[in-house]
Amino acid sequence: MRKLREAMGGLELSHLLVTNPLDVGYLTGFLGGDSYLILGPGRPVLVSDFRYQEEVGEFSDLCEIVIRKRSMGEAIGELLTGENVQRVGIQAEIMTVAERDQLAKRIGTKRVAATLGLVMKMRAVKDPAEIALIRKAVKIQEEALKALLPTLEPGVTELEVASRLEAEMKNRGSSKPSFETIIAARANGSMAHYRPGSTKLAANQPVLIDWGAIWQGYHSDMTRTFTLGKWPKPIAEIYPIVLEAHQAAAAAIAPGKSTSEIDKIARDIIAKAGFGDNFGHGLGHGIGLQTHEEPRLSHMLTGTRLEVGHVCTVEPGIYLPGVGGVRLENDYVVEADGAKNLCSLPMTMDWSTLR
Amino acid sequence: MRKLREAMGGLELSHLLVTNPLDVGYLTGFLGGDSYLILGPGRPVLVSDFRYQEEVGEFSDLCEIVIRKRSMGEAIGELLTGENVQRVGIQAEIMTVAERDQLAKRIGTKRVAATLGLVMKMRAVKDPAEIALIRKAVKIQEEALKALLPTLEPGVTELEVASRLEAEMKNRGSSKPSFETIIAARANGSMAHYRPGSTKLAANQPVLIDWGAIWQGYHSDMTRTFTLGKWPKPIAEIYPIVLEAHQAAAAAIAPGKSTSEIDKIARDIIAKAGFGDNFGHGLGHGIGLQTHEEPRLSHMLTGTRLEVGHVCTVEPGIYLPGVGGVRLENDYVVEADGAKNLCSLPMTMDWSTLR
Repeated sequence: MRKLREAMGGLELSHLLVTNPLDVGYLTGFLGGDSYLILGPGRPVLVSDFRYQEEVGEFSDLCEIVIRKRSMGEAIGELLTGENVQRVGIQAEIMTVAERDQLAKRIGTKRVAATLGLVMKMRAVKDPAEIALIRKAVKIQEEALKALLPTLEPGVTELEVASRLEAEMKNRGSSKPSFETIIAARANGSMAHYRPGSTKLAANQPVLIDWGAIWQGYHSDMTRTFTLGKWPKPIAEIYPIVLEAHQAAAAAIAPGKSTSEIDKIARDIIAKAGFGDNFGHGLGHGIGLQTHEEPRLSHMLTGTRLEVGHVCTVEPGIYLPGVGGVRLENDYVVEADGAKNLCSLPMTMDWSTLR
Repeated sequence: MRKLREAMGGLELSHLLVTNPLDVGYLTGFLGGDSYLILGPGRPVLVSDFRYQEEVGEFSDLCEIVIRKRSMGEAIGELLTGENVQRVGIQAEIMTVAERDQLAKRIGTKRVAATLGLVMKMRAVKDPAEIALIRKAVKIQEEALKALLPTLEPGVTELEVASRLEAEMKNRGSSKPSFETIIAARANGSMAHYRPGSTKLAANQPVLIDWGAIWQGYHSDMTRTFTLGKWPKPIAEIYPIVLEAHQAAAAAIAPGKSTSEIDKIARDIIAKAGFGDNFGHGLGHGIGLQTHEEPRLSHMLTGTRLEVGHVCTVEPGIYLPGVGGVRLENDYVVEADGAKNLCSLPMTMDWSTLR
């Protein structure tokens, strides 16, 4: 909050209205959601409602707690009155047009100023305590996968596999999956954001697993591609290319490097091998209080440079429609001397050793 | 889409930019997300990206498909050029201020017009096919609960119960829980939006279960409160009050009734029994492609009237901090002659019959 107040000063804001629930959680520790935070000259004000009355109580040392009785818009409008309310920053990347219009009606259009990514920029750089939480989430998802592997066999549906894997994560304390688990059997692996269905795992066919855990609000995210038995030929050919792209990109991670440059390293390897058209998504993304956050590693976005404390995925893939796909994803923290891999599960075509 | 075009005509919009992924799903059938729909004088345009290339293909009869190569903002800006682009409606309750500002920069502020809830108003009224999908989701969650009940015993943690229940739903085809399952053991039941943790179920103590399933995109949502053994006294006292409030409110549901009126019926019963301060949330909410949608049954919101085809929850509760809570929730469809209950699981203090 101290750092944020400095940023607010630079923008000549008397107040900042924090409406992103994750930013509220980051700044206060309250991750319940549905609550807004007002930062102004005095004590921060956490505006919540009846449902969280008991939970927000423990944050009263840090913030003034307001349990609103009317709509959030009305409550915020009332709290943002008075002489010292000069210029209220809103989170333009979060607040909807309808909310902004309501606020402007209540406090005057001139008092409302759009801000962009103030808190997200801070959130992108993790401190050691946050990295420890992500590491724990990684550990949960890796242990869950190890428990799952012996149960993978032909005839099991994708949904059953997803259900088992998510149960293994929940049993280890992950409140929910970091995102909807992807279990893509056989040719389904060619759809980068496939949702599991009734397709059954089959012998000598690949299965792509993209899964993640959450520990105390912090997310992890990994992908592995396995086969049940032998690798079908086209998949066996693309696996080493994806692996090489992954390793080369991860090895290039360092503070000051451009994120699009890192993306390009992997993309060039895949393109040189003749699969440039089969890798359509970005190379990776930051992880933290959400599964996708800053920094983005993408060829579409330039201008971002890696910093010490950034935590991001590296996840190149090759997708062959009608055949299947390979994606290999780990989570890395940017340190002064390069990337540290937060994952310990190997990326190997022979996963019998993991059983 | 035909109905929506009529509404657009009334607002003198040449185009509508649909950015709510659920509205896009509702109008086109494509529920993959991350895709925008442009409705204009010609064919609708579905703007998606590489990840969904294969999936969106099947919607090409209905829409022109554009797989964007650059950012969504740039792609939309390019598509919304030309003489026939006069006035573009945006979804003010969904679009962020930052997105709107970008769009206004690209096509001119005067061409951007805020609209509110155009598609949501249509979505609130379900047709028989949609009701059948919600009914199926209800069936999945009820069968999952029946499978869970015999495993409830003292010593099991809330997280373990949640994990089992969610696995039972997934095994029955619910892609993911309708929302984060609430398993609130003992005194935790007093927190209306509690998240399951390591608290263990205990003999002669209540456990509140609020859970839901999804079937083909459609959500269901129910709550039951059980006890393991005998009911502790304060909980035994409030259970019948909550049940009475539920039944009275459900019996009053009918087309043309004000939603705040229905809320008041339950609220008055709870207040008369002396627990007015212990029921802080609204009585219920619409369900459909999301867990919370129109219509809201709340004392804070007036002016909404029930219509035939609305599907909503009724979920009064009484919450006693430090002691526990009771909430009882079913899903109802508004029919010409009143509410039809989509749930078949009884609300009973003696659940031994369900085992």
